[in-house]
Amino acid sequence: MSSITPPLARRLGGLQSSAIRDLLKVAARDDVVSLAGGLPDEQLMPRDRIAQAAESALADRARLQYTESAGWGPLREVLAARETVRLGRPVPLEEVFVTHGSQQALSLLAEVLLDPGALVVVEDPAYVGALQVFRAAGSRIVTVPLDAEGMRVDTLADLLGRGERPALVHTVSNFHNPRGVTMSPGRRRELAELAERYGFWVIEDDPYGELWFDNPSPEPVAAYSSHVIRLSSASKTLAPTLRVGWMTAPDAVCRGVELLKQGADLCGSALTQQIAAELLADAEWLEAHVREVRRVYGARARVLVDELRMRFGDRLVSTDAAGGMFVWVDFTDGTDTVDLLPRAVDLGVAYVPGEAFAVSGAHRNSMRLCFTTSEAATLREAVARLARAIGE
Amino acid sequence: MSSITPPLARRLGGLQSSAIRDLLKVAARDDVVSLAGGLPDEQLMPRDRIAQAAESALADRARLQYTESAGWGPLREVLAARETVRLGRPVPLEEVFVTHGSQQALSLLAEVLLDPGALVVVEDPAYVGALQVFRAAGSRIVTVPLDAEGMRVDTLADLLGRGERPALVHTVSNFHNPRGVTMSPGRRRELAELAERYGFWVIEDDPYGELWFDNPSPEPVAAYSSHVIRLSSASKTLAPTLRVGWMTAPDAVCRGVELLKQGADLCGSALTQQIAAELLADAEWLEAHVREVRRVYGARARVLVDELRMRFGDRLVSTDAAGGMFVWVDFTDGTDTVDLLPRAVDLGVAYVPGEAFAVSGAHRNSMRLCFTTSEAATLREAVARLARAIGE
Repeated sequence: MSSITPPLARRLGGLQSSAIRDLLKVAARDDVVSLAGGLPDEQLMPRDRIAQAAESALADRARLQYTESAGWGPLREVLAARETVRLGRPVPLEEVFVTHGSQQALSLLAEVLLDPGALVVVEDPAYVGALQVFRAAGSRIVTVPLDAEGMRVDTLADLLGRGERPALVHTVSNFHNPRGVTMSPGRRRELAELAERYGFWVIEDDPYGELWFDNPSPEPVAAYSSHVIRLSSASKTLAPTLRVGWMTAPDAVCRGVELLKQGADLCGSALTQQIAAELLADAEWLEAHVREVRRVYGARARVLVDELRMRFGDRLVSTDAAGGMFVWVDFTDGTDTVDLLPRAVDLGVAYVPGEAFAVSGAHRNSMRLCFTTSEAATLREAVARLARAIGE
Repeated sequence: MSSITPPLARRLGGLQSSAIRDLLKVAARDDVVSLAGGLPDEQLMPRDRIAQAAESALADRARLQYTESAGWGPLREVLAARETVRLGRPVPLEEVFVTHGSQQALSLLAEVLLDPGALVVVEDPAYVGALQVFRAAGSRIVTVPLDAEGMRVDTLADLLGRGERPALVHTVSNFHNPRGVTMSPGRRRELAELAERYGFWVIEDDPYGELWFDNPSPEPVAAYSSHVIRLSSASKTLAPTLRVGWMTAPDAVCRGVELLKQGADLCGSALTQQIAAELLADAEWLEAHVREVRRVYGARARVLVDELRMRFGDRLVSTDAAGGMFVWVDFTDGTDTVDLLPRAVDLGVAYVPGEAFAVSGAHRNSMRLCFTTSEAATLREAVARLARAIGE
């Protein structure tokens, strides 16, 4: 077996199995309330609609076959119509590409757009799925911090001013994972302007944009420039099992991704793509369904944030319950979330320490909490346990 | 858009959209009988069983979620049991990995096992999906020809004797695509011995092994050595829409592929993997289903081969109707299959010229014919048109 070692060791370098996955194993104990997960609530997924759509998809034997690498035509048509509304400009079919979840879009885009050693800018704390892809691509990674208005675009402008020339800037523009914040409209415009001036690509990774609680998400960064590639997904609004993500990008980028997709896995599933197409095309039903998901997640998020603020007061700063799936907490009292974790799990609550998302900053006083799969009473109990673990 | 050009051009190099796909566009005309395709017959796919299995899978909401990167546990258990029988040794769960079709296994294995510039041996004519992956990986590709007993393992031994040291040897061991032939048991043993002696990996790519018409396929190459990674798929026996392929490989290889799969697309679909698990676990039903596919394909293949031999006599040599999906024809009379194609399409028949599968040899006097989706009368008509195109 020794002949596997050299390429594996070199190629994978420091790439490690996600720390989050290891944590989830610990937190799977029945007596632990886990806020460490990152899954949407399967109780809210439209199981019956998916089952009906599966049945009607299979009425046509063509849905049993291979499909086009770019995605099944009718799904791309639905997506093009939706993106046309979202971006406020006509989005032709050639600019929509269906991927196996948006993680596949990230992975194929890294191959298409990045030479080894290319400079990639990511937010810190970072979405680890993106970080993993850029590290595996051999990119040089530079970070820009986030604040309550999302990416610090002024810091990016400073980097550019000092002569750094990124090939790519990655942002989770809405309800950031893990940082919870949303990029303000002003910064979106500035980021798009920088992309045009300096000729880099922006990947706007947007799986959570529809999960707003009070106010709709701002216009996408992609509405401001054709240098922005927008990714989204059916995983958070419909169901991860469909493995349907999509990309809106210039034709040339889509064709590059198409060539690589043929080598990567030929094509997606015509069955799950047809299920997604049917559900996304039923606008009235979809609006009601997503409204219900927003209502339930919104209520849970408010309980969590209120409870954290009530219990801890000014010992922590929490993001607002504005949307998405995560709350980010910065402790102001020096609490070290890595050191705390074993004691927290002993007392029956799990979270992800900020360090798991760190690129340059350490985030030792921060944690990510996921509110999607817990009822209000459970969330209150989780915060009570957290308070006991820290020692009120 | 100019910033996309340099990495794309460099990375994709000579990589072109599959010639087969372009041909299929031409051959899609209603008045053309296309033997150029490479699809299994959707009329033979177990649509009703798939629909039932989808319904019962969705009874459990857990099937709506993300699943493990290595594949959904119960599917891996079914596959491990099947591979245990096929390989004649206990195959533990850790040595079975589910991929998004076996194309994804090829692609991830290339990343795990190959450094850029590594030597890869492929068969000539080659499975173009594998060739595309190895070219994209920047491999140095050397070919070994095929004859009626499959890969010329003696030629490989000569290469090794001259000091060539491949990292990987790729073979389609049963009913080769496009070459139709099956590797003999003696050569399987020799190939496995060479792999152990020289420390290279063999990828035994076996999507067609169950589609034998008269005699079961020989023991897999993987039965002879742990240096052999075996790939198979549900696409040819159940349905491509499931996007279920699998790999049997040493634990260390599976763990390397697992890390890359997380970055590539996180995981497969728990829904389609559960459908595959249910159908593959129902041994009695599966045996009857596959027997029927064999019967229909076998009858079609025999018609095609008989008709070719009757019409053309010693002007061509055709593979036997032994299994799989393809017949390979070598013209002995100098017919140039690239020059012939436009006239053949004009006269209403399409095929894939051998050149589309060429690596070092040109195969200008050869063609691949797919018999899976045409009834007997249509196949007879196709050969009649081919004879007219050539000019009897």
